[in-house]
Amino acid sequence: MLSLMKKPAKKAGLSPGTLIHVGEKKIDQIRIRITEYNDSFFEERELAVIEECCECKDASSVTWINIDGLHEVSIIEKLGNQFNIHPLVLEDILHTEQRPKMEVFDDYLFIISKMLSYDDERKTINTEQFSLILGPNYVLTFQENTGDVFDIIRERLRKQKGRIRKEGADYLAYALIDAIVDNYFIVLEKIDEKMEMLEEQLTENPNSETMQTIHHLKRELIFLRKSVWPLREVIGILEREELRLIQAKTTVFLRDVYDHTIQVIDTIETFRDMVSGMLDLYLTTVSNRMNEVMKVLTIIATIFIPLTFIAGIYGMNFEFMPEIKWHWSYPVVWIIMIAIGVLMLIYFRKKKWL
Amino acid sequence: MLSLMKKPAKKAGLSPGTLIHVGEKKIDQIRIRITEYNDSFFEERELAVIEECCECKDASSVTWINIDGLHEVSIIEKLGNQFNIHPLVLEDILHTEQRPKMEVFDDYLFIISKMLSYDDERKTINTEQFSLILGPNYVLTFQENTGDVFDIIRERLRKQKGRIRKEGADYLAYALIDAIVDNYFIVLEKIDEKMEMLEEQLTENPNSETMQTIHHLKRELIFLRKSVWPLREVIGILEREELRLIQAKTTVFLRDVYDHTIQVIDTIETFRDMVSGMLDLYLTTVSNRMNEVMKVLTIIATIFIPLTFIAGIYGMNFEFMPEIKWHWSYPVVWIIMIAIGVLMLIYFRKKKWL
Amino acid sequence: MLSLMKKPAKKAGLSPGTLIHVGEKKIDQIRIRITEYNDSFFEERELAVIEECCECKDASSVTWINIDGLHEVSIIEKLGNQFNIHPLVLEDILHTEQRPKMEVFDDYLFIISKMLSYDDERKTINTEQFSLILGPNYVLTFQENTGDVFDIIRERLRKQKGRIRKEGADYLAYALIDAIVDNYFIVLEKIDEKMEMLEEQLTENPNSETMQTIHHLKRELIFLRKSVWPLREVIGILEREELRLIQAKTTVFLRDVYDHTIQVIDTIETFRDMVSGMLDLYLTTVSNRMNEVMKVLTIIATIFIPLTFIAGIYGMNFEFMPEIKWHWSYPVVWIIMIAIGVLMLIYFRKKKWL
Amino acid sequence: MLSLMKKPAKKAGLSPGTLIHVGEKKIDQIRIRITEYNDSFFEERELAVIEECCECKDASSVTWINIDGLHEVSIIEKLGNQFNIHPLVLEDILHTEQRPKMEVFDDYLFIISKMLSYDDERKTINTEQFSLILGPNYVLTFQENTGDVFDIIRERLRKQKGRIRKEGADYLAYALIDAIVDNYFIVLEKIDEKMEMLEEQLTENPNSETMQTIHHLKRELIFLRKSVWPLREVIGILEREELRLIQAKTTVFLRDVYDHTIQVIDTIETFRDMVSGMLDLYLTTVSNRMNEVMKVLTIIATIFIPLTFIAGIYGMNFEFMPEIKWHWSYPVVWIIMIAIGVLMLIYFRKKKWL
Amino acid sequence: MLSLMKKPAKKAGLSPGTLIHVGEKKIDQIRIRITEYNDSFFEERELAVIEECCECKDASSVTWINIDGLHEVSIIEKLGNQFNIHPLVLEDILHTEQRPKMEVFDDYLFIISKMLSYDDERKTINTEQFSLILGPNYVLTFQENTGDVFDIIRERLRKQKGRIRKEGADYLAYALIDAIVDNYFIVLEKIDEKMEMLEEQLTENPNSETMQTIHHLKRELIFLRKSVWPLREVIGILEREELRLIQAKTTVFLRDVYDHTIQVIDTIETFRDMVSGMLDLYLTTVSNRMNEVMKVLTIIATIFIPLTFIAGIYGMNFEFMPEIKWHWSYPVVWIIMIAIGVLMLIYFRKKKWL
Repeated sequence: MLSLMKKPAKKAGLSPGTLIHVGEKKIDQIRIRITEYNDSFFEERELAVIEECCECKDASSVTWINIDGLHEVSIIEKLGNQFNIHPLVLEDILHTEQRPKMEVFDDYLFIISKMLSYDDERKTINTEQFSLILGPNYVLTFQENTGDVFDIIRERLRKQKGRIRKEGADYLAYALIDAIVDNYFIVLEKIDEKMEMLEEQLTENPNSETMQTIHHLKRELIFLRKSVWPLREVIGILEREELRLIQAKTTVFLRDVYDHTIQVIDTIETFRDMVSGMLDLYLTTVSNRMNEVMKVLTIIATIFIPLTFIAGIYGMNFEFMPEIKWHWSYPVVWIIMIAIGVLMLIYFRKKKWL
Repeated sequence: MLSLMKKPAKKAGLSPGTLIHVGEKKIDQIRIRITEYNDSFFEERELAVIEECCECKDASSVTWINIDGLHEVSIIEKLGNQFNIHPLVLEDILHTEQRPKMEVFDDYLFIISKMLSYDDERKTINTEQFSLILGPNYVLTFQENTGDVFDIIRERLRKQKGRIRKEGADYLAYALIDAIVDNYFIVLEKIDEKMEMLEEQLTENPNSETMQTIHHLKRELIFLRKSVWPLREVIGILEREELRLIQAKTTVFLRDVYDHTIQVIDTIETFRDMVSGMLDLYLTTVSNRMNEVMKVLTIIATIFIPLTFIAGIYGMNFEFMPEIKWHWSYPVVWIIMIAIGVLMLIYFRKKKWL
Repeated sequence: MLSLMKKPAKKAGLSPGTLIHVGEKKIDQIRIRITEYNDSFFEERELAVIEECCECKDASSVTWINIDGLHEVSIIEKLGNQFNIHPLVLEDILHTEQRPKMEVFDDYLFIISKMLSYDDERKTINTEQFSLILGPNYVLTFQENTGDVFDIIRERLRKQKGRIRKEGADYLAYALIDAIVDNYFIVLEKIDEKMEMLEEQLTENPNSETMQTIHHLKRELIFLRKSVWPLREVIGILEREELRLIQAKTTVFLRDVYDHTIQVIDTIETFRDMVSGMLDLYLTTVSNRMNEVMKVLTIIATIFIPLTFIAGIYGMNFEFMPEIKWHWSYPVVWIIMIAIGVLMLIYFRKKKWL
Repeated sequence: MLSLMKKPAKKAGLSPGTLIHVGEKKIDQIRIRITEYNDSFFEERELAVIEECCECKDASSVTWINIDGLHEVSIIEKLGNQFNIHPLVLEDILHTEQRPKMEVFDDYLFIISKMLSYDDERKTINTEQFSLILGPNYVLTFQENTGDVFDIIRERLRKQKGRIRKEGADYLAYALIDAIVDNYFIVLEKIDEKMEMLEEQLTENPNSETMQTIHHLKRELIFLRKSVWPLREVIGILEREELRLIQAKTTVFLRDVYDHTIQVIDTIETFRDMVSGMLDLYLTTVSNRMNEVMKVLTIIATIFIPLTFIAGIYGMNFEFMPEIKWHWSYPVVWIIMIAIGVLMLIYFRKKKWL
Repeated sequence: MLSLMKKPAKKAGLSPGTLIHVGEKKIDQIRIRITEYNDSFFEERELAVIEECCECKDASSVTWINIDGLHEVSIIEKLGNQFNIHPLVLEDILHTEQRPKMEVFDDYLFIISKMLSYDDERKTINTEQFSLILGPNYVLTFQENTGDVFDIIRERLRKQKGRIRKEGADYLAYALIDAIVDNYFIVLEKIDEKMEMLEEQLTENPNSETMQTIHHLKRELIFLRKSVWPLREVIGILEREELRLIQAKTTVFLRDVYDHTIQVIDTIETFRDMVSGMLDLYLTTVSNRMNEVMKVLTIIATIFIPLTFIAGIYGMNFEFMPEIKWHWSYPVVWIIMIAIGVLMLIYFRKKKWL
């Protein structure tokens, strides 16, 4: 996550619409899955070659084609041609550094968003680009990796759970986006746990590692915000503007996802506020502790310096020092020294320095 | 209040509209209270089972059904079916992590807001989700807990105080929201008291606990803001847009609640500004005090170090040190030492270091 | 000014429109003054009981009723009934914790704003709520205290100065608001003086009291901002929207007050920027001075520590220390010590540490 | 520049439209200059009394009356009467503490802006209020001082340079505003120079004076911003809204000034960002240098303290100290001391403390 | 890059539309290149004198005239006259300190933007003004320097790559702007690399140079933001408003560039957030390290000061000190000293100061 950019620069200067994959290759084998369904019919297949899917477009049922893995440009290109997708859209799908956005075309809607997941091992947030094309009766989706986020939707389709089989392609698109946004909450929860741990660490034993954790959390929140913020606008447009491809009855569901997105953003902003509060707390705690140390140590030194001076006085070798020869000098000096030390301690305590 | 999220993630992946209770179970027994009234008639009952309330819907009087406790999903579901409420609305009612919002449906308005109360024992703010459905002649309200916030309104209904018995369901909805917003002021007052105490502590004796209090206050304000801010928009829409279910004569009352909400937000913002000012004051006070300590202590040490050096000189055992044998050496050295000490003090005072 | 809230909570739960006075009782005796005038006629009276003013409403001249002191609720109520004022408006007038606002009713406009004055003795800003009701040919004004802010307007009315006697009730309302906004400038001027003094103190001799002054100023500016900011919107609406009760020829005057309000807000914002700049300056000045002290003192200590070590060496009592017996040891050690001290000073100066 | 306000308070309470001069008297003698021109005709005169200019108003040529010095209220008043100017406008002209603004009247436009110049001697920014009234074929301008900013425009008029003689009064107004905005760039350039110097000082030898310079720069930028920001809106309205007095062909020129104004504001904002960056850099540089000093000095002290302790041990006068009598004790102690010192240095260096 | 302004002040006072070159002269010889093409025809020429290009304007093909170098004002003027360009536009082209902007004229669009490139040697960002005039069938472009940014487009034109030869002048304009925005990504990538290096340096070995790098990065981002931010609006207008000179089919491409611009701005803002996070991390790391050093050193000193005091006690020369003569005094004192030292170490460790 250190670098924010996956070298989009290698594209600079190419003719617009030139298809080239920008991003990591995350899986070996591209996987094409096609799901066709309507209220009474359901079929799920995995395609070996993209050409097989050509006939599905004009069917009366809803067709969902999901492609995992973007590194084989030709597959995307062929699919794009079959569904008559604008080259710039294909370019955006392949270039995995897009900002979430929506574009309205005559025949289809194009939506890009980010899928987030929390990598428990490496303790970081993984991000993956998700592109969706919504046509009158088809949905095309593109992922960088084979994920299990949509398995729950496949399950619902298979088992006819909820209303999904009765609705059109727009409802499927909604369900997919909803699944993505639901996943954001899992990531937020992980961050919430981290913050609780941090809060505890902060009140009990803040050390220099705490600062690193705060810094890391801050960066994760900057990153999260960048990924989620634009989605708000995307779903807002989907819900508010009367788009031809979105049925009126789906709008209420989109409003629900919209609310969730706002809640995610709200939580991120609250987290940011809290992290900056933690930074303040950390800095004052550390400086308080340091001050405490320095103060006590300096006080010890300060008490002994005048005493050492007195001892130094009577260590002088002058021949004519009358006190030297008096019998009670030594105990008297001890008494004076103890008195000075005690008085200083009283003074310090009175001044509340101790 | 440490954690901002009540694990909404356990819902991720469920079909939209699936009813599940998200949140703490705050009371043992769900309590259903039904109040029916018009200008001349008033009845208050407590229901054992939800089915009893079915006939009330078409009555000419205003019906208010209040449910305390959300953990029995089936009750909410049955009520929802009777009043023909959208499943997504029921889902939101049960999921107690909603952001305050309003949704307009054909037959009813749906409003979610937060009820806040100050827990004097634990010195924290308690929050509870309050949902309200306003139909043509009924109001459904859902609370997580049995509270006494609305007792005052029941009292008014019973005793025919004010205009409430003469008005419709929209006025009742207004009265309930007004009661909630009035309660915010009580919470703000408690925070105001805390801040006064903090201010006093800050000028008299700031310690490391002060920082904890400031930090805690800051978090409470972040939390408050998150709960109240969206309500402004909700009530703003209620007041400004000409909704079919809100009568014109109720609008002036809604404008009044709207003003109160803005006042609450204003006060929260002012509190935030003041807390950040307090943090600055705390930091400079602590560092000033620390500097004061360090300075005085260092000055003491600095004065004695040259004197100890002089004493060290005449503690050397060289055989040929002429001063050693002179008769007045010892008093002269004392005088020199005192002179050096006094001169240094004068110098420090002149430089205003003391 | 410590507390921002005058316990509005004691109202929580009351039926809306219930009249109750919230705020301090600032004067003993409520004072009712009624002024009637037109181009050729002028009468000023002080009323003993509110009932006397009933007949004035339908007169062809402009009637201005001013009430100082709000603690006798019945007076406000009777007046309200006579002029047919909405109960919520009366409630707002009595509740002296309102935010500046304007409300448009069919027969009248209702405006709330804050009167500010600078208390030279206690060095704080006093605030007082001012409410104004503007009807077709009457103006009702409510103050908490008997002030002299409007004396100048009474004078103008009496002496037929300017155009005020020739204009209608809307011009009178304008003149009153103008007088209030003009007063803000006096308060700003006082703050300006304070800031000049602070600036001087800051460059000459900043001490821990300076910080308190900065903190105090900051709070006063937060407070001022809260009082003035909403007024901008109020006057903006008065000026821009074509309200029936405001004549076109008065609009140009309202634009003038609007400009003044913006100027006040502008100045407050600039003051805030400057105060935060002063805080920075204070902190760096204090820390620079502290560093200066610590550095010089540490340098003195550092020079003498090695010298004391040398003196310690020759204070050892070993029997076989050849230097002890040499004749020139003592002066040679002195020379070495002085050389070390001088070299260190040169080194420190070269490094610009001194 | 210390005080932001020129005592506008002395006006508080006066009847609106009362003419009174608020501000410094900057020149002794008011100077009235009248310039009349059209494509073929040009005349320039200096008037002794304001009454002479009365006949010029209805001429077919463009008339520009410029008044330097505002302290003789009667002159402004007479001119105002002749051109039928609203009293509030005259009041604003005389009150030199106005915020830049524009007001549209039926017969004329009224524009207020600030003229800025850099005083090279006192190293501060001077400000002067400039008011302009644009009528159908006349322009009235009011300055506080006799400046040379408009000499270039007079020159252009005299020599028929550019298109100015061919255009109407609106073009003249544009040319005057353009000259003022051009002057802002000169002030910005001076600040730019200051900032370059400051940057240099900051990397080479930051001292406590640097902080004062940063603070001063910050205040100047606050001040500049306050003067220029509202002008943006003024010129924006002039350019965008189709005002009767502005010809379409002049709009393109106004757009040009508008761009310049935005550029000025942009630069001010960038300067502000940079100054706050410099403040950070200053603080860390100073604290780094201080830390460096403290560290080296403390290390010296730390090395010698254990050594002095060892010397102290053998300075004790116990009768039975076997080491005292050994022959090689003295050189062995020396070796031990040197070894300790060297080991400590190695340790410190290894820990990168040195 | 130190100075933000290239002395635009030398223009102040000139008649608007006066052509004068403001900026550095970056190349010796102005280079005029003319490219004419349509679907079937392509010609590229370099002109010696500007007069040669006069006949090209009315051709049916698309004509692209590119001028590198702006110091010969007469060339720009002649070209401007031929294409009937407004003098203010020519002035803006020559004045290389413009803010990115767009202006719509009847016959052409005028666009100014900034070309950025990263100078690997001097490690700074170079900026160059790029002006573009888009007419019905011609594009005029003006650069300060001969760059290779557009070579890729010439190549595409020559080789008939992509759709560029089939489209009109508006597509060419789009392609040029796209090339410029693509270049921004290369600059961002360089900054990204710098930030990764900085992050590494920060966790491994932060020194005072790190602060300089952070400061430098911050300034570069301020500078970048200033250059790119206004471009967003420019392209936004091009895309959204239905301009006569932009064909509908080009709009989808402009939307693509618009998205890229937003992505650039997003990345800059994220970088700014991250740099300010790095500053925090740097400051705390440095202060933690310093504290660590100071603490350990002070502890060493503190342990030895009481021990030295004890040694000083028995260095006193009193005649009657009974311990002096006891046989086991010396070893007992040693044991006491070691005990004190060990106890202090245990105490410090227990308090977690060590």
